[in-house]
Amino acid sequence: MEPLKVVIWGAGAMGLGVARMISRKQGIEVAGAVDLSPEKIGRTLDTLTGCPQQRAITVVSTLEEAMKADPDIVLIATASMTRDVFPRVMEVLKYGKPVITTAEEMAYPRPTEPELCRKMDDLACEKGVAVLGTGINPGFVMDLLVVALSGACMDVRKVKVTRVNDLSPFGPTVLHEQGVGMTEEAFREGIRAGTVEGHVGFVQSIHMISDALGLGVDRIDQGREPIVSKVRREEKGIVVEPGMVAGCRQTGYGFRGDELVVEMLHPQQIHPQLEGIDTGDSIEITGTPDIRLEIKPEIPGGIGTIALLVNCIPLVLKSKPGLITMLDLPVPFSYMGDYRRIS
Amino acid sequence: MEPLKVVIWGAGAMGLGVARMISRKQGIEVAGAVDLSPEKIGRTLDTLTGCPQQRAITVVSTLEEAMKADPDIVLIATASMTRDVFPRVMEVLKYGKPVITTAEEMAYPRPTEPELCRKMDDLACEKGVAVLGTGINPGFVMDLLVVALSGACMDVRKVKVTRVNDLSPFGPTVLHEQGVGMTEEAFREGIRAGTVEGHVGFVQSIHMISDALGLGVDRIDQGREPIVSKVRREEKGIVVEPGMVAGCRQTGYGFRGDELVVEMLHPQQIHPQLEGIDTGDSIEITGTPDIRLEIKPEIPGGIGTIALLVNCIPLVLKSKPGLITMLDLPVPFSYMGDYRRIS
Repeated sequence: MEPLKVVIWGAGAMGLGVARMISRKQGIEVAGAVDLSPEKIGRTLDTLTGCPQQRAITVVSTLEEAMKADPDIVLIATASMTRDVFPRVMEVLKYGKPVITTAEEMAYPRPTEPELCRKMDDLACEKGVAVLGTGINPGFVMDLLVVALSGACMDVRKVKVTRVNDLSPFGPTVLHEQGVGMTEEAFREGIRAGTVEGHVGFVQSIHMISDALGLGVDRIDQGREPIVSKVRREEKGIVVEPGMVAGCRQTGYGFRGDELVVEMLHPQQIHPQLEGIDTGDSIEITGTPDIRLEIKPEIPGGIGTIALLVNCIPLVLKSKPGLITMLDLPVPFSYMGDYRRIS
Repeated sequence: MEPLKVVIWGAGAMGLGVARMISRKQGIEVAGAVDLSPEKIGRTLDTLTGCPQQRAITVVSTLEEAMKADPDIVLIATASMTRDVFPRVMEVLKYGKPVITTAEEMAYPRPTEPELCRKMDDLACEKGVAVLGTGINPGFVMDLLVVALSGACMDVRKVKVTRVNDLSPFGPTVLHEQGVGMTEEAFREGIRAGTVEGHVGFVQSIHMISDALGLGVDRIDQGREPIVSKVRREEKGIVVEPGMVAGCRQTGYGFRGDELVVEMLHPQQIHPQLEGIDTGDSIEITGTPDIRLEIKPEIPGGIGTIALLVNCIPLVLKSKPGLITMLDLPVPFSYMGDYRRIS
């Protein structure tokens, strides 16, 4: 029996992380890699991943070339928005292959992009394959885990989820998107101009929880405020002097009428421990019973997203066809055996 | 559209708790109740549950009578062992109806009862319905939640799960089964004689985790030791003097060869706070990344089991047919809307 074959679309931090994780697993291998960056096209994948067994894979610039390997699945890690990955998802679907993508909006895309979702769902159903968006957040820690935990509750009146994380492991692009190193004024201007993005995913997570639990959220408010540092912090050459911005404090509130039923807090910054802040994930369900869950430190974002992408492959291969979400699949798991046994 | 109709088999603490929970939900109702106890047969269900809308339901002594209501599903809450619920599951399946049971062994029954499982699976598949065992533990907190959490890990080397809970809310039968109020000697004799049962479920939970994660557990050791109290404790008329037994400390160890890969600790006692012991559930995954999760206090066992039973109804109704486990279903959720919308 052949190993499962995976094509990576996007050879950035996530795509290359996926390739490295797959290199350590049995019964699964990277069969192709697509990227648009001129400095990556034509290189062999091992020079990017450090994995010798990927020496035979050359990064190509088109899906068509990569599909010659006849992969079982394509993982797309190129963008955050549904509209940006949509043409790529459709292109893969035309080959009749399933897709998993890191695009944050794709973790629960129907509320914001119903028309694009209808098109992806139709083509996926026609081809008999599934399309999934996943990642650590949205896709797991601030939504799926909340839904799963509610399974032990007779009723749920309110949910509060907090993720306090450390941005230090991320690259300069992410740090800039979160406003790290800016003045407060530049941060606020960046929010207005769209150059400071903050976290993409609260709308998706709140809708996912509300739909799963029947909480009836009919309005979502979001806030993005600068985390102004009291101390000097530095990372990847970006210096944050006291009074400057160390990150973005994102808030999301889901209301049913006037009642707050889903609350999300997600302050992201570099080196939070310099101000004595402990990182962690926490979930508070107010219901019968109340449940208070804490994960300390937080599940790291990069590793967690890469893991979920790879760990969901066997589940997506066995899924019903169509545009699916994590709510449609059995719980994900980290598999230490041979992937051929479970796919 | 008619509400979903549920028959309860077993009108004990769990069965009646299920009936009460259902009475507070929309689009679902109890349509029948079976129990063998002479003091319950012939009574109307409202006199047992306190729910006025259950006045029209009379507790009957046979499934045949209860099935006249043509329920959508039957919930069996009568026993812990697969061999004890097996004839009841088969009887329900002959009517072509799906089953959810609280029987602890049924949460992952194949490793210990392969032959009975084959029979249940065959008949369930023939009838096109699913059979599920679930509950807070086994079924959720010490197994499914561990598996789900591993979904964010690139690899897992070891899992340690601890559940420190308070037995005080439980009835005298449970307290006796856990050895509460015994001398140390009587406890050890009770373990030998089988009258002190301890927790049923570690074999199931360890196999579930090992199979899901491919950890290759090939040997399971279990221990049950008395929790000897330093202080006086009392509950339901059972007095524990200092030096007597306040509960049972259950341990479970899953080995692959000589390597301990799954460790479970589950001390159950009345009033642990009298010795300054905090209750809680904790999961420690050693892998990439390490994950440390805590739920404080523990998810209460009775409420959690009742909730999971009811919350899994929509998932079981939509499941593929056969003998399934929580690993086969999407994540459970507490639904606050009308059950007809999701079934």
